[in-house]
Amino acid sequence: MLTRGEQFIQSLNDGRKVWLEGKDVEVSSHPAFAGTLNTISGLFSMLDDPDLCSQIGFHDTAQGKFVHYSFLVPRTSTDLTKRAKAFQIWAESTSGVMSRLSDYARSRLTGWYATRERYRKYDNHFAGKLASYYEEAKARDLFLTAVQRDPQINRSQTLGENPDAVLRVVGRNNEGVIIRGAKMIATAAPYANDFIVYPVARIPDDRPEYAHMMIIPANLPGLHMMCRESFAELTRKEDHPLSSRFDEMDAVLFFDDVLVPWERVLLHDQPEALWSIRTNEASNSLAYHQSIIRLQVKLEFATGVACAIAQAIGVHAYINIQEKLGELINQIQTIKGLIVASEASAKADEFGNMLPSFEYIETARNLGSRYYPRALEIIQTIGAGGFFQVPSTCSEMDGPLSPFIHKYLQGATNSGADEKVRLFKLAWDLIGSPLGSRHELYERYYAGDPMRNLANQYVSYDTEKLTDMVYSRIASS
Amino acid sequence: MLTRGEQFIQSLNDGRKVWLEGKDVEVSSHPAFAGTLNTISGLFSMLDDPDLCSQIGFHDTAQGKFVHYSFLVPRTSTDLTKRAKAFQIWAESTSGVMSRLSDYARSRLTGWYATRERYRKYDNHFAGKLASYYEEAKARDLFLTAVQRDPQINRSQTLGENPDAVLRVVGRNNEGVIIRGAKMIATAAPYANDFIVYPVARIPDDRPEYAHMMIIPANLPGLHMMCRESFAELTRKEDHPLSSRFDEMDAVLFFDDVLVPWERVLLHDQPEALWSIRTNEASNSLAYHQSIIRLQVKLEFATGVACAIAQAIGVHAYINIQEKLGELINQIQTIKGLIVASEASAKADEFGNMLPSFEYIETARNLGSRYYPRALEIIQTIGAGGFFQVPSTCSEMDGPLSPFIHKYLQGATNSGADEKVRLFKLAWDLIGSPLGSRHELYERYYAGDPMRNLANQYVSYDTEKLTDMVYSRIASS
Amino acid sequence: MLTRGEQFIQSLNDGRKVWLEGKDVEVSSHPAFAGTLNTISGLFSMLDDPDLCSQIGFHDTAQGKFVHYSFLVPRTSTDLTKRAKAFQIWAESTSGVMSRLSDYARSRLTGWYATRERYRKYDNHFAGKLASYYEEAKARDLFLTAVQRDPQINRSQTLGENPDAVLRVVGRNNEGVIIRGAKMIATAAPYANDFIVYPVARIPDDRPEYAHMMIIPANLPGLHMMCRESFAELTRKEDHPLSSRFDEMDAVLFFDDVLVPWERVLLHDQPEALWSIRTNEASNSLAYHQSIIRLQVKLEFATGVACAIAQAIGVHAYINIQEKLGELINQIQTIKGLIVASEASAKADEFGNMLPSFEYIETARNLGSRYYPRALEIIQTIGAGGFFQVPSTCSEMDGPLSPFIHKYLQGATNSGADEKVRLFKLAWDLIGSPLGSRHELYERYYAGDPMRNLANQYVSYDTEKLTDMVYSRIASS
Amino acid sequence: MLTRGEQFIQSLNDGRKVWLEGKDVEVSSHPAFAGTLNTISGLFSMLDDPDLCSQIGFHDTAQGKFVHYSFLVPRTSTDLTKRAKAFQIWAESTSGVMSRLSDYARSRLTGWYATRERYRKYDNHFAGKLASYYEEAKARDLFLTAVQRDPQINRSQTLGENPDAVLRVVGRNNEGVIIRGAKMIATAAPYANDFIVYPVARIPDDRPEYAHMMIIPANLPGLHMMCRESFAELTRKEDHPLSSRFDEMDAVLFFDDVLVPWERVLLHDQPEALWSIRTNEASNSLAYHQSIIRLQVKLEFATGVACAIAQAIGVHAYINIQEKLGELINQIQTIKGLIVASEASAKADEFGNMLPSFEYIETARNLGSRYYPRALEIIQTIGAGGFFQVPSTCSEMDGPLSPFIHKYLQGATNSGADEKVRLFKLAWDLIGSPLGSRHELYERYYAGDPMRNLANQYVSYDTEKLTDMVYSRIASS
Repeated sequence: MLTRGEQFIQSLNDGRKVWLEGKDVEVSSHPAFAGTLNTISGLFSMLDDPDLCSQIGFHDTAQGKFVHYSFLVPRTSTDLTKRAKAFQIWAESTSGVMSRLSDYARSRLTGWYATRERYRKYDNHFAGKLASYYEEAKARDLFLTAVQRDPQINRSQTLGENPDAVLRVVGRNNEGVIIRGAKMIATAAPYANDFIVYPVARIPDDRPEYAHMMIIPANLPGLHMMCRESFAELTRKEDHPLSSRFDEMDAVLFFDDVLVPWERVLLHDQPEALWSIRTNEASNSLAYHQSIIRLQVKLEFATGVACAIAQAIGVHAYINIQEKLGELINQIQTIKGLIVASEASAKADEFGNMLPSFEYIETARNLGSRYYPRALEIIQTIGAGGFFQVPSTCSEMDGPLSPFIHKYLQGATNSGADEKVRLFKLAWDLIGSPLGSRHELYERYYAGDPMRNLANQYVSYDTEKLTDMVYSRIASS
Repeated sequence: MLTRGEQFIQSLNDGRKVWLEGKDVEVSSHPAFAGTLNTISGLFSMLDDPDLCSQIGFHDTAQGKFVHYSFLVPRTSTDLTKRAKAFQIWAESTSGVMSRLSDYARSRLTGWYATRERYRKYDNHFAGKLASYYEEAKARDLFLTAVQRDPQINRSQTLGENPDAVLRVVGRNNEGVIIRGAKMIATAAPYANDFIVYPVARIPDDRPEYAHMMIIPANLPGLHMMCRESFAELTRKEDHPLSSRFDEMDAVLFFDDVLVPWERVLLHDQPEALWSIRTNEASNSLAYHQSIIRLQVKLEFATGVACAIAQAIGVHAYINIQEKLGELINQIQTIKGLIVASEASAKADEFGNMLPSFEYIETARNLGSRYYPRALEIIQTIGAGGFFQVPSTCSEMDGPLSPFIHKYLQGATNSGADEKVRLFKLAWDLIGSPLGSRHELYERYYAGDPMRNLANQYVSYDTEKLTDMVYSRIASS
Repeated sequence: MLTRGEQFIQSLNDGRKVWLEGKDVEVSSHPAFAGTLNTISGLFSMLDDPDLCSQIGFHDTAQGKFVHYSFLVPRTSTDLTKRAKAFQIWAESTSGVMSRLSDYARSRLTGWYATRERYRKYDNHFAGKLASYYEEAKARDLFLTAVQRDPQINRSQTLGENPDAVLRVVGRNNEGVIIRGAKMIATAAPYANDFIVYPVARIPDDRPEYAHMMIIPANLPGLHMMCRESFAELTRKEDHPLSSRFDEMDAVLFFDDVLVPWERVLLHDQPEALWSIRTNEASNSLAYHQSIIRLQVKLEFATGVACAIAQAIGVHAYINIQEKLGELINQIQTIKGLIVASEASAKADEFGNMLPSFEYIETARNLGSRYYPRALEIIQTIGAGGFFQVPSTCSEMDGPLSPFIHKYLQGATNSGADEKVRLFKLAWDLIGSPLGSRHELYERYYAGDPMRNLANQYVSYDTEKLTDMVYSRIASS
Repeated sequence: MLTRGEQFIQSLNDGRKVWLEGKDVEVSSHPAFAGTLNTISGLFSMLDDPDLCSQIGFHDTAQGKFVHYSFLVPRTSTDLTKRAKAFQIWAESTSGVMSRLSDYARSRLTGWYATRERYRKYDNHFAGKLASYYEEAKARDLFLTAVQRDPQINRSQTLGENPDAVLRVVGRNNEGVIIRGAKMIATAAPYANDFIVYPVARIPDDRPEYAHMMIIPANLPGLHMMCRESFAELTRKEDHPLSSRFDEMDAVLFFDDVLVPWERVLLHDQPEALWSIRTNEASNSLAYHQSIIRLQVKLEFATGVACAIAQAIGVHAYINIQEKLGELINQIQTIKGLIVASEASAKADEFGNMLPSFEYIETARNLGSRYYPRALEIIQTIGAGGFFQVPSTCSEMDGPLSPFIHKYLQGATNSGADEKVRLFKLAWDLIGSPLGSRHELYERYYAGDPMRNLANQYVSYDTEKLTDMVYSRIASS
């Protein structure tokens, strides 16, 4: 019998159009995807493992099997803790370097599902369609990814000025709606079974053709996924322990008049409903709860790299280096504290869903966009020239230069050249490889423009209680 | 019958030597102290108020009266919440601008008291002396302040190189020990009943004469408190709502061969014990728990000022201003989250004391040294020239220039010139007055050198679990 | 015979309306202005000094006397060097802490004068009126100040939405035009003989009533100067060596239907001409050339304070302190280099005026808005608690506490307590007094919103030569 | 007849031992070096070009041919300008992305040569050996690189604690000295004809065995160059316009008891002389003059990328983007100004060499370590997700997805998809490729630890003139 991981890989042989280097490639067999598929497959198969399955998932009575905790609608604090633990295990298995393992998008789905009754006023079919899809995704272990943004054509234009700039409905018939346009950035697109597509910006009431929410199977005719350059290291895997395993890939989706069947058109022509979908607190809280848990693991990993390097070259005793490492520890503790606070302040919503407090989650997420780049900068600062004081491949450590390497590339006490070289290579993979650079960009931007996100913390805050403190001080003067 | 506040003021007429502008002054009657004494007196009298007493304090059966929560040895999570609430009320009453209201030092004392048995191995009398003093302080509502640092003479010298550089024991007799030297910075010294004196640095084993912990009554013969320039605004109080009420004062203490009675000499000649006192987690957690609660209120107040100004001049709609205000909200939420986390992660120690988690408290405290200066910088940035677009005194708003002021100094909708002028004056008192400048310095340094504090987060952290993540990634490559 | 300084002070007794603390005060005799008047008077009298007069000024044959170099129309590189030297001497005499000694505004005037023919197309009288005023200002050593900004009422309104928000012409007759409104911030207003008033923003063509440039004598009927709170230290001068001498004062000008005579109405109803005035490169280059020379002296002074403190307490040997002091040296060298570059790259304009290169001047000016606040922050960081480890007044060093002060407040080798205490007091006056805080704000904002100023460096730059480098690289790939 | 470039390539077939991916490779034919060799060859051949030769070099009468300006001993300001122009042309030809084209090391050599008489007191042979080598290097167009640093083994050890940690003399005989150890980072090692080897740190007098200065021909027996991983893009050149041409390569040099002939041992066993070599102002000024000219071109290129991207996606109209672009312009102007200042302030030394002012050069160099990373950060910020909204290869723009690419990846007006895609690919090569990441690290560290470099600006500055300003202010109070 196939493992869940194997089933997942098989599921990708569905006729999808994935374009890489000018060719329409088969994901399951192309070498550029092999390392990552192997990683995902291993994670999915954890649910087959009797020891792990109950940490990663819960037993779904309807399905008669364990399903991943990202599908769990939390009703108690314990549920939140279990979700958190599952996210943490996956994140630790991937050093926090894989951001879109579908636990984020599944959590989004779970959040909407848990509050689906709220949308009955917009569309009577929504709740039913969504529940049905949720059950299917859970039953089939579907790998999901959410795609919200529009192509970056001309950011000074207004919506509709260039009709091609935003994905839109161009027709509809008995079977469904026909959509045309493009969407970016579809992270992990080649690995996805389905895309959840909806707009990130608020659509004005007079532009309903842009206000839709759809589930798009990856193999719908007319859908093309155009991949960016692969960052997967194919040959020197030992020298690139991250790039050889964790390239999530990003793609642009082109919709060449794609017909989306009605049962996958969750909402259409509903600007107000779409804004509510976008700002749905259950969906946001559950999804970003996953994000910040992953963030914490990634920061721990990066901090571990910084500490290991400092210790390997004996600079960890200097106060100015300690200050920088302390700053990284401070970052970890801040995010960890905000996770704890979000869970400790969880409240039940009107449907009885126990939601982690979004105010702390949002705060942590916004800090992350500065913390992760700072961590990379500190690793640079500590390692300095050491990143280039390594042989081009690990195998050379046993080659003709071996005696020199072991003598001159050794590290401080207890750290032999072998360990030190591998450490610097891993670190360079994190800070200097295309995969590493892409992750810096990812952490800055995955949740949108960080400037706007900070601004939103002001806009959505009840500042009156703050200004009241000020005016009452004035009044009492 | 005297209120607790009045009793407190009376208690300062004890023969203490407080020097200001070259004169030995009486604290209770000198105008430089009047505003602050009035503030403290009001806070102390809250325990007389039937509505407030149970929020600020607990009923102490031994004393038969309410005493401040800073004296409460926390045994449950609820105890922590109560302590927190009491700190918050005092902080809100003073806009977070008074840092040393004795709740910090009392919490330190409570922490040592709660773990006093740990020190029996160093000195058999310690536990008894401390318990006795704790009871007295509680019974008499004593205003305490902790003084740890040495004069800033030559930071490149080692301990003992200049014998005058560090307070030391120069004699001892039947009554007590005789000490000579100076200590800085004694914040709130003129208002203190007792000083808790001990060294901030680790004393080497061969220098026991520097390793002492004493309770020094403010009126001991030979003790002189030399005040810095007063920042209290005496005349234009309306224009300086903070400076006219909240000058804590800082002083240097000179010890001119002061005899400290044995019952107040808690430890002496014990380098190891003193380092344990200094790093006592109960004392640190309880004291800095108060500090970060006050920090949060202060950040809320500063953020309130920033928001009020932005709204008063109509710039709050600009995204770049919103970003800055959002950053301030983010700061508040971060500190608030860390407070929640410290309480949610509280654990009982071996004596059953329920202690808030120091790792989150330390993290918040270290962030504070950057957050508060940043808040002031943002207020500057938003208010810009507006701080000087006000009449020299509030009273002028009703004077000959009144029509011009009301027409040309008005603010955005709903904000008249009167409110706007007072707002900018309050803001300037926060960012531009000597009191305000002193607070910026205070937040940076009150807990010691921020560089060293960050470094300590590294030094005291179990980095092995972080580097293990890295080396196991390497091993699996 | 009166010195030039005495003549200047006398000239202020001209019936002007200066309001301070609700009263219409006489500038020449009010104590709040005495220290600053004494400073300005000393600077003005340098032209009477046979040794100094030729460094500060040039012999004007028309006048038969020396006049300040700020009035010199530069025709050669040497002229620029002489102007620079004169600015430097005044700046060094005031530790760079007085920003508006009229050399800035006089330089603006000189720049417009030198290019006056350019404006003939807008108004045939302009060149004549300006030349006549320039000669008068030079002949009478007039103290000038430029006032450009509008009251900060509602920054989200557009021009004209609130007619009171911007100074405007409300009438005209044979004698002149009648203006109504307010202007801010009139730095040094009480000391000014004349105000040069014109708008800072571009006035749209359909709003000519806001497009005027006038010379306003300080004593025109209907003109009121409302001063902010005085920052001049009146009593403890020794403890406040800067605040007791260098308060420039800021004021809001109220124009209560002031009649400005035609010969002082240089331009009116000319939006395009006014924008040309505002962006006049000769005026900008000459004025900001003075500004950055003063900036450099101020940065040197602040860096001197930082170095002196570090040395006084023996921390200058630590690498982390050296790094900060090195950063301050780097700031000084950067500004100095840009001054050198601006002079070395000077070019003659179409009238033969030798103008320092504005591109370097603008760059230095924009850096200044970040450099000066950073200098203050570093002084804070180095001095730390030491600012409060001083007696309230210098005189106490000879009082009853004298032996303790001299023993415990001494500094590192060679630095006695007396010098160290005075050093920290001077430093506090720079970083902690209202005067010091006001200067931080001044440096950030005197040239306008620093965000907009940086943006302007992009907007006014020929980026095509930069993007060409990129596209030619692409083309050659 | 061979071009100079061809001769250069031929010269590398000299028996050198260059190790890449475990093999001893031939530089002139291995694909990893082809792109870079082609680049260098083109630059060297400029001297063959009748139009360019006089911009790049001067006619050397002894040689009867043009030689590169880096060999010119400057005697006049014009000489400096010519040197600067030559450096600029090479830098612009390589977008500032090749840092070590031997013009830096040749300038170092020229500086020592110009001041060689200063070293006669240490070793009577020095001047003759150096002059002879200088002439040879000039005659043969030698590609030089300087290698100064020791392996990063344990930075907390002192010199000599681990004898293998620092390159040292282990024997000497009639022919020369025998050296053992390693040196890092030998940038451009595979392309070098000779290495100039000397210690970066001050060698104590009792450790003369570490105090040597040698010219090491690349093919000396026993010398091994161990290359890091190649960053040269071999296949997708069009997608990586920088990585396919400009990989300088870095190597560690292993010295396996290498015999260096006496005529190449310029100094030995001379700690004091070596420190003088290291701090030789002529050598530093001339070499870093080249560095900051290259820096400026690189900053212009990076700024060009930022501007081009902003314009291509229509965000250049937003004030917050303009602010960031303005910051980049400000960086360019600052460095440019400091170059101008260094040349305008040039002075002749005691030998009549006209040296650019090192104080401005050092200032610019130290700023560069922060400016370049900041430029990359801003490019990230502006491009955001756009870097991944491109096809994996440029050729796809003409492939099956062509219509979608041209419709949905187009840019703002006038910028077609083709240009926009190539722009983002070039930008990603600059900020996200290993070559790009290596350059960020290079700019931070090529001149040593930036913290120490800033500290040195303090240590080497005459702070007394600054503190005098302060103490004279105090004295006059």
